[in-house]
Parts: sequence; structure tokens; C-alpha cells
Amino acid sequence: MGSTDALPSQDLLVVLQKANQIASTTDRDTLLRGMASLLMDFNQAAAFVLLEPRAKPGEMLVSYSQGVELPPQGVQALCAEITADSPRCLHLPGLGARLVCLLPLAQNNPQRGAVALFDAAQPQLVVSDLLVKRLGSELEKLDLIASVKQQTARMEALVNIIEQISSTLDRDTILRRIISYANDLLNTEFSSLFLVEKNGDIQLYLGSNMPEGKDNKITVPSGQGIIGHVVKSGQTVIVDDVSLDHRHYAQADHMGGVTTRSILAVPLKTRALDLGSKRGGVRERIIGGLEAINKIGSKFTQEDARLLQALANQAATILEIAGIYNEANELFLNAISALAAAIDAKDPYTVGHSQRVSEFAVEIGREMSLNAEEIHQLRIGSLLHDIGKIGMPDAILTKPGLLTLQEDAQIRRHPEMGMRILGHIPKLRPALRAVWEHHERLDGSGYPRGLKGEQVCLAGRIVAVADVFDAITSDRPYRTAMKLKDALAELRQQADVRLDARCVEALVRAHANGRIQTQKERRGRVSASTLMPSRPLFP
Amino acid sequence: MGSTDALPSQDLLVVLQKANQIASTTDRDTLLRGMASLLMDFNQAAAFVLLEPRAKPGEMLVSYSQGVELPPQGVQALCAEITADSPRCLHLPGLGARLVCLLPLAQNNPQRGAVALFDAAQPQLVVSDLLVKRLGSELEKLDLIASVKQQTARMEALVNIIEQISSTLDRDTILRRIISYANDLLNTEFSSLFLVEKNGDIQLYLGSNMPEGKDNKITVPSGQGIIGHVVKSGQTVIVDDVSLDHRHYAQADHMGGVTTRSILAVPLKTRALDLGSKRGGVRERIIGGLEAINKIGSKFTQEDARLLQALANQAATILEIAGIYNEANELFLNAISALAAAIDAKDPYTVGHSQRVSEFAVEIGREMSLNAEEIHQLRIGSLLHDIGKIGMPDAILTKPGLLTLQEDAQIRRHPEMGMRILGHIPKLRPALRAVWEHHERLDGSGYPRGLKGEQVCLAGRIVAVADVFDAITSDRPYRTAMKLKDALAELRQQADVRLDARCVEALVRAHANGRIQTQKERRGRVSASTLMPSRPLFP
Repeated sequence: MGSTDALPSQDLLVVLQKANQIASTTDRDTLLRGMASLLMDFNQAAAFVLLEPRAKPGEMLVSYSQGVELPPQGVQALCAEITADSPRCLHLPGLGARLVCLLPLAQNNPQRGAVALFDAAQPQLVVSDLLVKRLGSELEKLDLIASVKQQTARMEALVNIIEQISSTLDRDTILRRIISYANDLLNTEFSSLFLVEKNGDIQLYLGSNMPEGKDNKITVPSGQGIIGHVVKSGQTVIVDDVSLDHRHYAQADHMGGVTTRSILAVPLKTRALDLGSKRGGVRERIIGGLEAINKIGSKFTQEDARLLQALANQAATILEIAGIYNEANELFLNAISALAAAIDAKDPYTVGHSQRVSEFAVEIGREMSLNAEEIHQLRIGSLLHDIGKIGMPDAILTKPGLLTLQEDAQIRRHPEMGMRILGHIPKLRPALRAVWEHHERLDGSGYPRGLKGEQVCLAGRIVAVADVFDAITSDRPYRTAMKLKDALAELRQQADVRLDARCVEALVRAHANGRIQTQKERRGRVSASTLMPSRPLFP
Repeated sequence: MGSTDALPSQDLLVVLQKANQIASTTDRDTLLRGMASLLMDFNQAAAFVLLEPRAKPGEMLVSYSQGVELPPQGVQALCAEITADSPRCLHLPGLGARLVCLLPLAQNNPQRGAVALFDAAQPQLVVSDLLVKRLGSELEKLDLIASVKQQTARMEALVNIIEQISSTLDRDTILRRIISYANDLLNTEFSSLFLVEKNGDIQLYLGSNMPEGKDNKITVPSGQGIIGHVVKSGQTVIVDDVSLDHRHYAQADHMGGVTTRSILAVPLKTRALDLGSKRGGVRERIIGGLEAINKIGSKFTQEDARLLQALANQAATILEIAGIYNEANELFLNAISALAAAIDAKDPYTVGHSQRVSEFAVEIGREMSLNAEEIHQLRIGSLLHDIGKIGMPDAILTKPGLLTLQEDAQIRRHPEMGMRILGHIPKLRPALRAVWEHHERLDGSGYPRGLKGEQVCLAGRIVAVADVFDAITSDRPYRTAMKLKDALAELRQQADVRLDARCVEALVRAHANGRIQTQKERRGRVSASTLMPSRPLFP
């Protein structure tokens, strides 16, 4: 180091005590303002400039200044001079005739940046260097604190995101949320979510911030592209410049109408799921991949990768759970639907009846703006409305002529029989009122209990309309099907006497909108839920 | 401040440059070792002691020392002297004749701690004070960095915990994990998880680290205790000293055999769950509460509260999802069980048959160490094994005498009919092979396809044994039930000819262990899945 400054100890101590006080802050701006003033006072300088490195290597920027605004060429000239570890006094052509003291922030590392003091009347290079080195060390600590605090904030954001994703079992909602949250969390230009198809191809499911008007149907052949590598290997990949990575599947850019520069890609890997002692478990598997594309303002970091991987892991597991839940629901609906169809099919005249009544009832419910849970219960109740016929002798069910009084009494027991068969299952109870009450009529002429008006539950009234409509528009052994016009007239005639007028009008609207079809109208259409004796057996 | 030290500037600068170098570390020990050596050299002192406050207010401890081990009374004597902000030289009775320089770490806050230098040959109070103030400021920053880093680490731990909790849909596993993870995350003596009962009482479900031999059946009446408050209000509560909180339900301590000092209690609140457009949603609700008890070494912080609340939120939501999934599964099993029972009940001689065959088949599967998923498929397949009888005329099903050849040919179609009814449901296929093959026999004498030996799937062979066993141990119109001994002998005689010997032996073992009972043995037992015409209807 150069010559000793001619400063008395007492003044030096005061400066150092002030530096101690200034450095006690954890606020970057307060620290810089205080140290700049101290250094300017102490050197009787006109201006203070701090130069620090930024994202791009080798580039420095003015990150703080007092007393001067530097023209770009001045910044460049100063930066070019930050090559030594020791303080120096310079005259730089780019800055006119001004004298500049250049003081590096760190010993042995000019790249860490420097302080420049302008036009110092009393340059105190050695003590100033001491203060600038201290500033450098304090800045490093504050930057560390800021970076760790940001990490915490991002982890907190991740926990919130996981909570959001876990609060739905709707597959599409989960997928949409993954994409939008990945973008927010990582500050990227856009994100893409890919799902593995049955044939191993990888299909773009959804991209965020995609240019409008572009069709998102992009398929990456199995094993190809960066996403193919990620899905195959299960590994996370960071590519800073895709133009240098031979794996990049440039066609996807072309098809998506975007320009990919950098990519962070993680697999969507479900965890091994424990379904409880009665069901065993599901193994872990890779269901797709997630790409964060074009990090804004910097490169992808290992921390970005960890965050996105944690998001992807949890999202994949919730997707798997949603899938399993939806399968369980579907299985139940498919099973009762098939069994109801089998009972209908005992009589050739009622083939497909329960399925049609269910479709009618659901559409009436939709017309009447019932909510999703009510529609769900209505679907179950209407599928099962005739399930009590299991308990009826088939001689009566399939009798070609009119029934005797005794036979009629027996057939009228089917709503109650349905209740007896299924009524002990607590979770079915909301749906079963439709089974019990679908033969009740508003005027009390129905059965089994002869309920009147509002005593009949809404689901019972809806299924009654659907049931009557299907019966009168289908052939029966003792009569042919009514024409549509006559059938609707018949329903309207019964409206507010025996049937609920709102339900009748809802059915009429649903039919007018083409949302329901009578048995005759759908002739030739094959219903998968109808018992089909000619259907091929498995495997 | 006192008199100026008689130190030349040059020496002072060297000391300050060394201090700068030492302070560039972010490691607490390295910083302390360096600053202690610098201060001892500079003052020619024999020893260095750092006193810092610890958890309990007003208490100070030696957190670092060089050159001396202080006796407890020495520490006390020193602590008693840390009252001023300025450095002093002292002789303390508790420390013999030694001269001590006492230098507070912070201006205006003696409670922040102090450095003591022992037996300094050249005490340099003013500059040393400057260095100690710097040490104080550096320590504060390192402590801040450590605390923020710890926050990040805990958030990371929380994300891992959430992943763990989300990877099971088994209610008890979820509940056990919540408890054990809560303890790890918060560093507490133990934790307790409470669930709200139907009557509003709050039942201790599980406690971690509870003293052994204590019965965990502790019930807190609705609205009582701190947990009652939390469950009722949905708010998080921190109590530093439960003896001062009138809400504390001391009886729980008494019953649990533990001593509660501090509590952090959070509600287990499920999120509003979206089940998809077909099912609507489930509202948020409080299902219980989680208590972290007796924080080790410190008080509960707001950060602890946020972490435990995040854990509880996610755990409650996963519990809700697990509940919904299990309900969907149960609903399916209950429905097919009830419908199979209704078909059995068409013939008084086969009432309860499918249920019993299913119980037998599951126990045979267990004896043969099938896994949970295989047992599950076996349960479904055996419940449904006779479902094809829906398609059979009941005149044949209930015919009292022997069947004609034609009638027999028709009844032999029931396995195929079962396939035709349900075979189009992909998720049912694994279970349906048992339906299709339960009348096949190893020697090829069975139907419908006359499969031989290993061609018959294991589930088919198991259900065959279960089916034959129930048939021969039940009365039939044309014969009475065999005695148990004769029935087992009959099965063994058919073993390896028509039936699989391993399945027969598994059934014999299951029966010997009391895990299955024939129809005669269970007489008088009421089966909830049997069609019971006298069961009361709802509501």
C-alpha cells in the first residue's frame, strides 16, 4: 500500500466510529447513503459512484451515486480501469478533466466492483480504501441476507401454491394451476406442461402466455427433445442456451410460435401412493414434464430447479390422487348403470330405460339450475329408480297383457323394494329419495305413500317426469309409442295435477335444445350402457 | 469517550485492515477466533471472554473465551458490571486480583453483551471499544443470516413433510405422520392431535412421546380448554405459561400423565375442495386441532405458528381427500354387495350366498398371502360372481326340483352373462376373470369354456373353492347341508382333480383359525349386506 496519510489518530477514530454506526443497518440504501456521505466529507469530494457487476459476466453498472450522473462512455471508461486491487487516482478522457479516486470493493477481486470519488480536494486514499473494503464486506453480507430472505419468501410461496393445487380434484384445474404458478414462482416468460401419452409420445397439454391464435397441439415423439430426455431419465435439466443443446426440439418452437432461449425442465413424477391396508398402493411413475422457459433477467439457478421440482412432485401426486378418486367415482356410476341396464333388459320393452331416464333427469336438473352435487345425486337416483324390480318375479315384469290387480299391487312395491335393497348404505341415502318417490304424484294419486305436492321431493318429481316421458315415447306390449307432439301434450296436461309443471317445462326446453332424445329418436344409436348380448367378451 | 490512545496512525491502520479481513467471514466461530486474537494481541491481554444474553431475559452466558475458564461466580460478577455503554477497567472481587477491561458490544444497549479482556499489559480502551462495537455489529448480522437460513431450512422441511403426508390416503397413517412431523419441525417435547366428534366433544386422537402405559382416551368437552377455543374460533393460540391461562384444561394433563408448560395450538381446518364440474365441492370446516407442547429451549414464535398452521392446513385437506376417496370406494363395494345380495335373495335358498363366498374368498386370499390390490379385486370378483343370474329367469333360479338339460344349459350361461353385463367397464376387468372362471375346474370339466389347470386364473380357482364350500354347507331344495367334517372331506377329495389343492388347504386353515364361518355356523348372526325385507325404510 502507498504512503501513510497525514491524519491524526483522533480524527481517524471519529471517522471509524461513524463508519461503525452507519454499518449497523441492514438496509442497503441506508448503508450506501451513509458511507457515500462519509467518504465524500472525509475526502472533500464532489461525487460518489458505486460500480457493481450485474447478471452478464464482465459487465458493471452504476448501482448507486451521489453528486453526479455519468454518461455511458464514462461508465465504460471507469469499468475498464477496475483491474487492480489497490486504490488509485486517475484522469480519464471519457470524464473530461475530472480527477477520479478509484477504490476496489474487495482485496484480490477487482470483479467485485469499485467506488469512484470525484474531484477530491483532500484525497485520503489509504483510510478511504479501508472504508471501501468495509463497505464491500457489508454489501456482501446484506446481499447474502437478501438472497436468503428471498429463498424463504419463495419457499413460502411454494407452500401456498401446494395448498392451492391440493384444494381441487379436478384434473384440468390442477393442470392449469401448475402452469400458472410455475410462471409466477420462477419469473419466466412462459411455461409448458407435457403429458405422456399411452404410446409414449409426449403431448403439450398446456402452455402459459402462448401467443394467441396458435394451436397448442404439439407432440414430441418419445425420447426426443429436452422434455423427452427429462421424461425418460426422470432428471431435471437446465439449459442456459438451447441453441447450443442438440436435444432441443426446435419444431416445437416453430409450432408454438415462440422463441425458446433458456429452459428449466423437470419431470412430473408421482410419489408411490399408499391407499390404505385394503387397497395397497400405487407405484411412483413419470406422467409428464414441466418446462419453465426464458428466465427473465438472469439464468436458471439450482434453487429454481429445486423449487420447480418440489412443485412438480406435489402436483403430480395430487394429479394421481385426483385420477384415482375420479376412477372410483366412475367405477361406481358405471357399475350401477350396467346393473340397472341388465334389469331393464330382462324385458325387451324396457331395454335402455334407466339410462334414458337418467339422461332426461340430469338434463331437467341442469335446466332447473341444480348444483353439481344435486345433479350427481339425481344421476344416481334416476339410474337406480327401477332397481327394486330385482325383487319382482319376471313373469310379471314381462307379462304381455294387462296386469291383474294382485300383480299390479306387487309391481307397485318396486320403489319400496329399491329402498330395502339399498337403503342401509348411508352415502346412498340422498339419492334414494328419488327411487322411493318417483311414482308419487302431486295430487296424491301416486304410490307407495300417496304423498302430495311439496311432500314429494324435487328429485322424485324430476324422475317422475323423466320416467313418464320415456314410458310414453317407447313401445309397450299393450300399446305403441306416442308421437313426440302427443307425448309433450300429455306431459303438459298432467302438469300441476300429477306432475310438477316446472319439471315438465324444463324437459320440454331440454328436448327443444336437442339435449335429450326419445328412444325412437335415438334408434340406431348404440348405447354402451345397454345390455348387449352380442358384445364381445374380454380379454 | 475517554482520552485518546497514544497510538500512531500507521499501527491503527494495520489493526483496522486486519479487522476488515477477519470480518469478511460469515462463520461465527472464525469471526470470534480472529477478533479475540486481534484484541488480545493489540492489548497484550492474557484472556478474552464474550458474554451474550441467552433465552431467559436478564441472563448472560460466556458464549466464547480464549485463555481463561471462568468460575460461575466470576461470570456472575462480570454480568453484574455490564451496565454502562462505555469501556471500563475494573478489579472484581470474584476474579481475584485480575484486571479486567469490560467493553460493551453495542452503544446504548448493555443488554446486548460485552467483551472482557483480562490482564492487559497495554490496555487500548478507545480503539478496542471500536473493534468490539464492530464485533457486535458483525455478530448481529451473522445471527440474522443464521436465523433467516434456519427459516428457509424449516420451510424446506415443511415442503418435505407435506409431500410425505400427501403420499398416503390411509387416514391413520396421515394422522400419525402429522403428529410426528409436528414434533420434529417445532422441536417440542410432545404434540397432540384432537378430532371433533359428532357430538362436538374433542377427542385426543394421538399424542407423541406420551409417557408409556397411559391410556390416550382423553375427551375435552366442546368449547373447553385451549384446544376447544381453537377448534371453535379457528384461531391459532400461543400460550407461554399455561398456569396463567384460565382456559387450560388441566384434567387433560392429569389424564395424560404429562406436565404442560407452553402450548402452540392450531385448528385442523380443511380447505374448500373442488371435486370437479360433475361433483361440485366440499366446504371448508374445522375437523380438529393440533397442539405442540413445551417448546424446548425457548418460547413459541410467530414463525412456529405459521409453520404449524401451514402443516395443519395441508394435513387437514389431505385427510378430507382421503375421506372422500375412501367413501367413494366404500360406496362402490356397498352398492355391488347390496345388489348381489338382492339377486341371491330371489331364491330363499341362496340368501347371503355372495356375501359369504366373498368372505371365504378374501380369507383364502389372505392365507395365500395375496397383496392388498389382489385381495381387493378378489373381493369385487367374488361379490359379483353370480351377478349374471340377473339375466336368468327366476323360474329356473327358484325351481325346487332338479333342472332339465335345457334349464341346466341356461343356468350355465350365468358366468358369461356376468361378463356381458359388466365386461365393458375397463376398471372392473381385473375382477371379472373370477366371475367368468369360477365354474371352471382343473380337470376341464367346468364351464363355460372347459379351461384346464393353470388356464384357470388364481382368482377363479379361489372363488370356485369358496363357492363350492358355501353351496355344500347350505341347504338346497333337493338336499340338506353337509356337515362341516363331510364338507371339508368333500373339498379335499376334489383337490387337485377339480379344485386347486392350495386354495382348499387355505380355506381349511382359515376355517380352523375361526376366520370364516359356514351359513349354519353363523345362524342367528345378522348380516347387514343380506337383503332384509323387514329392515326399516328411511329416513
